[in-house]
Amino acid sequence: MAKELKDLTKRSTDYSRWYNELVVKADLAEQADVRGCMVIKPYGYAIWERMQQELDRMFKETGVQNAYFPLLIPKSFLSKEAEHVEGFAKECAVVTHYRLKQNPDGDGVVVDPAARLEEELIIRPTSETTIWNTYKKWIHSWRDLPVLCNQWCNVMRWEMRTRLFLRTSEFLWQEGHTAHATREEAEERTRQMLGIYARFAEEFMAMPVVQGVKSETERFAGALDTYTIEALMQDGKALQSGTSHFLGQNFGKAFGVQFVNKENQLEYAWATSWGVSTRLMGALIMTHSDDNGLVLPPRLAPLQVVIVPIYKAEGDLEKLNAVLGGIEAELRSRGIRVKYDNADNKRPGFKFADYELKGVPVRLVMGGRDLENGTIEVMRRDTLDKETRTTEGIADYVQALLAEIQNNIYVKAKNFLDTHIYECSDYAEFRERIKDGGMFLCPWDGTEETEARIKEDTQATIRCVPFDVDQTNPGTDMISGRPAKYKALVARSY
Amino acid sequence: MAKELKDLTKRSTDYSRWYNELVVKADLAEQADVRGCMVIKPYGYAIWERMQQELDRMFKETGVQNAYFPLLIPKSFLSKEAEHVEGFAKECAVVTHYRLKQNPDGDGVVVDPAARLEEELIIRPTSETTIWNTYKKWIHSWRDLPVLCNQWCNVMRWEMRTRLFLRTSEFLWQEGHTAHATREEAEERTRQMLGIYARFAEEFMAMPVVQGVKSETERFAGALDTYTIEALMQDGKALQSGTSHFLGQNFGKAFGVQFVNKENQLEYAWATSWGVSTRLMGALIMTHSDDNGLVLPPRLAPLQVVIVPIYKAEGDLEKLNAVLGGIEAELRSRGIRVKYDNADNKRPGFKFADYELKGVPVRLVMGGRDLENGTIEVMRRDTLDKETRTTEGIADYVQALLAEIQNNIYVKAKNFLDTHIYECSDYAEFRERIKDGGMFLCPWDGTEETEARIKEDTQATIRCVPFDVDQTNPGTDMISGRPAKYKALVARSY
Repeated sequence: MAKELKDLTKRSTDYSRWYNELVVKADLAEQADVRGCMVIKPYGYAIWERMQQELDRMFKETGVQNAYFPLLIPKSFLSKEAEHVEGFAKECAVVTHYRLKQNPDGDGVVVDPAARLEEELIIRPTSETTIWNTYKKWIHSWRDLPVLCNQWCNVMRWEMRTRLFLRTSEFLWQEGHTAHATREEAEERTRQMLGIYARFAEEFMAMPVVQGVKSETERFAGALDTYTIEALMQDGKALQSGTSHFLGQNFGKAFGVQFVNKENQLEYAWATSWGVSTRLMGALIMTHSDDNGLVLPPRLAPLQVVIVPIYKAEGDLEKLNAVLGGIEAELRSRGIRVKYDNADNKRPGFKFADYELKGVPVRLVMGGRDLENGTIEVMRRDTLDKETRTTEGIADYVQALLAEIQNNIYVKAKNFLDTHIYECSDYAEFRERIKDGGMFLCPWDGTEETEARIKEDTQATIRCVPFDVDQTNPGTDMISGRPAKYKALVARSY
Repeated sequence: MAKELKDLTKRSTDYSRWYNELVVKADLAEQADVRGCMVIKPYGYAIWERMQQELDRMFKETGVQNAYFPLLIPKSFLSKEAEHVEGFAKECAVVTHYRLKQNPDGDGVVVDPAARLEEELIIRPTSETTIWNTYKKWIHSWRDLPVLCNQWCNVMRWEMRTRLFLRTSEFLWQEGHTAHATREEAEERTRQMLGIYARFAEEFMAMPVVQGVKSETERFAGALDTYTIEALMQDGKALQSGTSHFLGQNFGKAFGVQFVNKENQLEYAWATSWGVSTRLMGALIMTHSDDNGLVLPPRLAPLQVVIVPIYKAEGDLEKLNAVLGGIEAELRSRGIRVKYDNADNKRPGFKFADYELKGVPVRLVMGGRDLENGTIEVMRRDTLDKETRTTEGIADYVQALLAEIQNNIYVKAKNFLDTHIYECSDYAEFRERIKDGGMFLCPWDGTEETEARIKEDTQATIRCVPFDVDQTNPGTDMISGRPAKYKALVARSY
C-alpha cells in the first residue's frame, strides 16, 4: 500500500485535522499565497462543476436566467440599506487606486498616488446593492415582473479565520436575485428556492438537511426572513449549507425600484435572494468521507468507476486490455464516467490507495486468474466491500451498484442525522449533552436574550426553527421559564 | 411594426452607433454604474453560456482540466517577470484596505485607515503570475508534466475608453495555462489551442478568421510568441478574437518552477497561455448583424425557432394552439431550442420586430387561412426571406434550414473576408486604400520602425504574419525599400 497517501489522521483522533489533510491529500484545494484564499485544484473543481451543472438545470427549470453583474460596487451603494451596510462593511476588500508605477526609490512597483479613485470601490461580498440599482432601469410596470436572475461568480469577505471550502475570503457561489409584484409571490419564491437546495442536497449530495427559518439575529443583513438548510457533520456540528432570503421591499425602497401595479398605482418591488457556495464542497466531504479518504456520491463523482489490471508479463496485459477495454467501452456507452488505468509507472497498490483517497465509488480489478475464470473483482468505496463476480452482465451490475451506493450513503447519513437530533427542554441537561455534539430541539421563548445566553454558555447557536417540527405546543423556554414560542434547533456549528 | 424597437441607426449612417445601440436594444448588455464595467443581461449571457459550453468541451477533449485560482495577486508577483509588469501594472485595480467603518464626521461609510494591507493586492488582469507561483508546488519531476489547467473567470484592466463587450474594464474570459517538459511540446500546445479558437470561430460563430503570429511589439507581455486569430468586421476593421502565447521559460524562471527531466537534470518548465473573452460577443454581433438587428448563427442562438400564431377570435387560437403546439413539441424533441409565443399582451407586429432584433434564426407564423390550408409561413432571419409551405414535414424542413442558415452566414462572411484582403506593396496606394477599410497583405522588413510609421501615418497596425500566406518571396518593404522578411497583414482594428 502507498503509505504516503494513506497517512491520513483518523477522524477519531482529530476531526478537524482529518478534514484539513483530506482536502489537500485528495487534491481538492490548497491555500493560496493570498491570505485566506484558496486554489481549487482540478479534481476539486470537477466536483464543483458537477454541482453547478445540476443546480443550474434546476434553477432554469423554474424560469431563472443567468446574467452577470459587476465585481466592484461603489462604496456609497452599501450605505443605502441600513442593515446591509452593518453586515458587510466590516469585512470587505477596498479598491482605492487604479494604477501602479515603478518605484522611484527602489525595486518593484508601488501604488501611483496620482491614480486615486474619487469614490472607493468594494469587491462584492454579495450583490443585492448593485443588482437592485440595475433593476431600477429594468422594472417599470407589473408587466416587467417577475425578474428572475442568477449569477455564478466569485465574492469576497475578509474573514479572519479561514478553512478551505468552509470559510475563505474569496469563494465561488451562485446568487439568485428576484423581483416580484407581490409579497406572496416573493415569499413563495423564497421557499421554492430553499426547496431546490434541499432537494439538491438530498438527491445529488446524498446529504439530508433540516429546513427552517433563522432567528432574527442570524438573518441576512437586510432580510425580513432567512430560510436555511442545515446539515449535520460526522463530528456532531451543524453546517449551514444554503440560504434563501425574503427581502421584502427593503432593497426596492433603498434603490427606488417602483412599478405601476395592475391597479395603476406605484409600488415598490418585492425581493428575494438565495445562494449556495463552494462551502457545499466542505459539507460533501464531511458528510460521507472516512479514514481512508473521500467517499463521493456517484451522481457528483467526476470519476464513477476505475478499472485496474494486475499483470506480470506483457502478454497478460494485452489480454487484459482486450477484455477490460470492452468493459470500459460498455460502461461509457451507458453514460458512466469510467477510467481504465493500465499505466505502468505506478503499482496497483498505489493506484488502489489513490482512488480510495479520491473517493471513486466503484473499483474493478482483474488479474491473470480472473482472466482465466472470466471473473472480476468489484470493490465499492462506501463500504470497502469486495466481491468476485463473473464478467457476464458486469455493466448492468455496476450501473445498479452506483445507484445502490448513492442510496446507501444517503440512508447512512439520514440515519446519523435522525439519531442525533434530540428533544431537550432542560438547560442543565442541554449544557452537558451539547458537548458531545448533535442537534437539539429546545423550547425557545423567541427572545434575543435567551439566544445570546445559549451561545455564551455553550458556543451553540439557534440554527433555525424547523419547518417540519410540530410548533403548536412548544412548551416552556429552558432558560427563561417563559412560555416558548417555538421549538428551535440548537447546535454547535461551522 | 413596433417603431420603438426598430428605431436602430443604419450601419451605413454610423456603424459605431449602430453597434452601441444594437447591444442595448437587443438586451445583450448595458453600462454598469461602475466606470467602464458592464452588466451582461440574460439574453446576452445565454449566448456567452453557449460559447462557453462548446469551448469548454473542445478544451477538455484535448486533456485540459478546469481549476480556480485567486482573484487577488500580491503586488510583488507582478514584478517578477520584467516585461509582464511593464504590460500590466499601468492599468490595474489596487486593493489597499480590508474594512470600511461608519464615517465619524457624517453619513455613510469611509475606509478604515487602521485596516491597511501590508502589501497591496491587484485584481488579476491575467493570472500567469499567481498560477506559476502555484505550479512551483505542483511540478517537481517530468512525471508531473504536462499540467493543463484552464479557468473561466473575471479579470480587470483599467481601460480608459470602453465599449460594451469590445473593451471593458472588467470582462469575463477563460485563461488556459499549461506547463510542459519540452519547448517543442509547449509550442505545439500553443498552436493547438489557436487551432481550437479558429475552429470554434468558424464552426460555431460562423466567423472566418486569419491565423498568424503577432509582431514583437504586439506580443503578450512576457511571451516569446503570440499567435492570434483576426476577424474582419463589416466596417472593414479587424478584430483580434483570441490569442495563444508561447511563454518559453520566462515564467518558469521568474517563479522558480524547475523539474527533474528524464536525463535526471534540473530544468525550467515551458509555458503557454491562451484566452478568449466576452469580446467574442462583439465579434459575433459585428460579423453578421444587419440594420434590422442581430443575426445569430443557429448553433449559438439561445432560441433557434420562434412560432407565432395570428388570430382574431379566441376559438381560432385554440385551434392554432393544437397545431402549433404539436410542431413545437416535434421541434423540441429533435433538440431544437424553440419557443411558442402565443402571449396575448403583445401584437404580432411587435413580436416580429422583437425576434428580428434578437436574431432568432427561424420564425414560423400561422394564421386562420394557413390553418384551413394546412400551411405555415417560414421566415429565415439571415435573408429575411419568407415562404409559405405545407405543414407536412415542417420539422425536417426547419432542421435543415437551421443548418443551411449556419452555413450561409459563414459563406457570406467568408466571401466578405476574401474580397477584402488585398495585396499591396505600394505605400502611397496603401495609405489611400486603408481609409476604406479591409486587410492588406504588405511586404514588411520586420523592423519596429516601419511598423511604427504605418501606425503613425494611418492608424493601421500589423495584425499578424499569416500562417497560410506563402512567405518564401515577400518582396520589398513598402516603406523602407529594404528586402521584406514577411508579408504582414495590416489593418485598422478594434
